[in-house]
Amino acid sequence: MILTEEFDMMDKIKGNLMYGQSGGPTSVINASAYGVINKALKSDFVDDIYVMKHGIQGALNDDLIKINDQFKKDVELLKHTPGSAFGSVRYKLKDYEQDDTDYKKLLSMFKKYNIRFFLYNGGNDSMDTCAKIARFMELSDYDVFVIGVPKTIDNDLPYTDHTPGFGSAAKYIANTIAEVAYDMLAYPIGKVTIVEIMGRHAGWLTAASGLANINGFGPDLIYLPERPFSIERFKSDVKGVYNKKKHCLIAVSEGIVNELGAFVFAKDGKDNFGHAQLGGVAAKLSELISRELGLSTRSVELSSSQRSASHFQSLVDVKEAISVGEYAVELALKGQSNLMVGIDRVGNSPYKVAYSSHDLSACANFEKKLPDFMINDEGNGITKAFLDYALPLIQGENKPKYHLGIQKFAKIK
Amino acid sequence: MILTEEFDMMDKIKGNLMYGQSGGPTSVINASAYGVINKALKSDFVDDIYVMKHGIQGALNDDLIKINDQFKKDVELLKHTPGSAFGSVRYKLKDYEQDDTDYKKLLSMFKKYNIRFFLYNGGNDSMDTCAKIARFMELSDYDVFVIGVPKTIDNDLPYTDHTPGFGSAAKYIANTIAEVAYDMLAYPIGKVTIVEIMGRHAGWLTAASGLANINGFGPDLIYLPERPFSIERFKSDVKGVYNKKKHCLIAVSEGIVNELGAFVFAKDGKDNFGHAQLGGVAAKLSELISRELGLSTRSVELSSSQRSASHFQSLVDVKEAISVGEYAVELALKGQSNLMVGIDRVGNSPYKVAYSSHDLSACANFEKKLPDFMINDEGNGITKAFLDYALPLIQGENKPKYHLGIQKFAKIK
Repeated sequence: MILTEEFDMMDKIKGNLMYGQSGGPTSVINASAYGVINKALKSDFVDDIYVMKHGIQGALNDDLIKINDQFKKDVELLKHTPGSAFGSVRYKLKDYEQDDTDYKKLLSMFKKYNIRFFLYNGGNDSMDTCAKIARFMELSDYDVFVIGVPKTIDNDLPYTDHTPGFGSAAKYIANTIAEVAYDMLAYPIGKVTIVEIMGRHAGWLTAASGLANINGFGPDLIYLPERPFSIERFKSDVKGVYNKKKHCLIAVSEGIVNELGAFVFAKDGKDNFGHAQLGGVAAKLSELISRELGLSTRSVELSSSQRSASHFQSLVDVKEAISVGEYAVELALKGQSNLMVGIDRVGNSPYKVAYSSHDLSACANFEKKLPDFMINDEGNGITKAFLDYALPLIQGENKPKYHLGIQKFAKIK
Repeated sequence: MILTEEFDMMDKIKGNLMYGQSGGPTSVINASAYGVINKALKSDFVDDIYVMKHGIQGALNDDLIKINDQFKKDVELLKHTPGSAFGSVRYKLKDYEQDDTDYKKLLSMFKKYNIRFFLYNGGNDSMDTCAKIARFMELSDYDVFVIGVPKTIDNDLPYTDHTPGFGSAAKYIANTIAEVAYDMLAYPIGKVTIVEIMGRHAGWLTAASGLANINGFGPDLIYLPERPFSIERFKSDVKGVYNKKKHCLIAVSEGIVNELGAFVFAKDGKDNFGHAQLGGVAAKLSELISRELGLSTRSVELSSSQRSASHFQSLVDVKEAISVGEYAVELALKGQSNLMVGIDRVGNSPYKVAYSSHDLSACANFEKKLPDFMINDEGNGITKAFLDYALPLIQGENKPKYHLGIQKFAKIK
C-alpha cells in the first residue's frame, strides 16, 4: 500500500477506473456519473472505465459495463436521466474481520480488470460500504484509491453543507406543494390536505415544502422527525388553522416519531439494512382528522417522484452533482483514498461553493438532522434560517430532453 | 327573447360579461379565463367584465370580481396558474320547473349588473348548470347569451374531439409514469408498482400513462373503467409480467368496475352530485398482490397533481384552452346562446383543429368513454389508435414563470 504522502514523489499510477451507484436513486445521481465518466475519459492516467451494474453486486458478480465509443455518444443524456441509470443495490458488506469473502472477491476483480480507482456513489450506507472496501484494500498488497461520491435526497450526510440530489428533490417538493396549495383554494370550504414527504430520520425534505410559501402558496403546518409528534397537539394545530382559513395544508415527514422516539406509523417488515418500512402516515393522519374533528380530508403521498422527478432538476444541483463526480476523480488520481467528497458553502449571497474531502468512516452511519435554529419554537414549521439555507439549492431549471412530448432517458445495455 | 336568426338584422346588444369556473380544476382552466377576459377586453360590445367567485355561488351571493386595470397587469400569469384562480364550486341547480328561486336570483343579478354575456367554464355537471340557465333565460324577458366553455382533465365531454385540460394532465401523467418506470429499474429484483390515476368513468387519463412507452419506459399493464376488472385475471397478468421481467408497472383507474358495473373499491359517502368518492385502489391492489402473490409492492396515487401540475402544461393544450375561451366570447357576441364550444380535429399530421358549437343539453350529463378500438383485446393495455389520438395533445412545453425557483401564480383578491 502506497501512503498518500509518498505519492507525489513516485510515478503516478495508471490503470482503470470502476464506478458504481448504490442506495436510493436521486434525480441527479446520473449527473455525478456523467462527471466521473467525463473527467476520467479526459485523463491520461485512466485507461478504461468500468461501471458496476447494480453497484457492488455488479463488481462481485463480474457484471460490468465497459464505457465504449457508442456509450460516449449518449453520455450527455445522463444529465437528464433520473433513477440509477446503471442500477443500484442495497447490499450490506459484512465486516471483513468476520467474513472477508466478498472483499477477497472484490480484490480479485480489481486485479483482473486492473482497477486502480474505485468510485462509489451513494448515501450513508453506501459510504459505509465504501469505507470498508477502502480499509480492506489499504491492508492488502494492491494499490487502489477509493473515493465516495455523495448523493441522497435526504440531505443527511455529515461533513458536507448539503448533498447532491437534495436541491432537485426540494425543488420538486416545494413546487408540487405550491400547486396542491393553489388547487386546495378552489372551493369555498376546503379540505384538510395532508402531504407525506420522504425522509426517514431527517426532516430536510419535509422542511423544503416550506419554500413554497415564498410565493404565497404553501403549507400551513410542517411536522418533522426532529421533534416528537403529539397527536393532541396536531389536532389542536389543525383546528386552529382550519377555523381561521376553512382549509389547512399540512406537510408531514414519513418518519415522525413519538415522545419515545418510535415511529408513529411503521409498516411490518424491514429492509436489508434493518431499517423500518415507512409510508401511509398521511393516510392515517387523514383518517384521524376525519374521525376526530369531523373535517373533510385528502391525503397525498409524493412517493418515488421525490427522488426521480428529472423534470424538476435544479440547475444548481445538476452542476454540483457533476462537480462532485469530477472532484472525486481528481482526488483518486492524486492518490487519495478512503475519502468522501464534501460541498462547502463559501458564500450565500452570491451563493458559492468549494469542494473538500473527508474521512469516509466519519461520513458513514451518521445522519445529519435539521438543526434546532431551522425549526420554529412550536415545532410545526421552519424558520428563515432554513429558507436562507435551502433557497440557493433550488435555483435554475435543467430543461428536460423531450422526444414527442415525453422525456428521453439514457438507455444502458 | 331575441331569436338568433334575427340578431344580425338588429343593433348588436352591448353590455357586461360574466364568467365563472366550476367543477374540478385543470392546469389550463385559467388559460381559458385568459382567453375570455382578453377577448372581451378588446370588444366594443363588452363594457365591463365580472368574474364570479366560486362559480355560480358567486353570482347567487353577489360575490363578484370586476376586472380592473390592476388586474389587467396580472392577466398574463393566468396562463401559468393551475387550479381555479377565481374559485370553483360543486353546486347543483334544481330544475327550474320544481324550484326557480336560484334562477330568479340569477336573473335579478344579471339585471343589476347588466350582464348580457354569460360564460361558464366547466365539465359535464357545469354544462348541465349552464344549459338550465340558458333555457330559463330564454323563457324570461331578459336578453342574455349563455355559452359553455369546456374543461375537464377527464376528457369525457361529448361533441368535442378532446377537452382543454386533458392534454396537460396526460403529459404530466405520462412523464411521471416514465420517471416511476425508470426509478423502478434501479434494483435487480424490482417491485410490483401500482399507480392510481384519476377518471371516474372514462379511462382517458389512465390510458395516457401508455404514452410513456414511446420512449421505452412505461407501464406494463393498464386497467381502464371501460372493461370489467377481474381480480383473477389481474393476478395472472401481474404474475406473467413479473416472472419475465422481475418487476411490473401497472397503471390503474380509480374507477375500475366489476362485471356488474360496480366500483371495485369505493369509499363511504358521496359528493354533492351524488358521485361515489373514489381513491385507494392502488393501495388495495398492492395489498392483494403482496398477500396473494407474495411479491414486494409499492402503490402510488398521483392525486391532485394530475389536475394542478402547471409545471407540466402542454403548449398545445394551453393554446387551445385560450382559443376555446376566445371562441366562446365570439359566439356570445354573435348572439348565440345555449351552446358549448367544441374542438374539431381537422388534421392529425400535421395536427390542426377548428372550433365548433354544440347544443348545451346534449353535452351535459353524458360521459364520453374510451372507444373499443383504443383498448387492446386483452383489456390490459391501449392500441396504436390511442397513441395517434393522444400524442398531438401533449406536444410542447409552456415554461412556468419562476420567482426564486418556485412557480408564480396569479393572486386574485
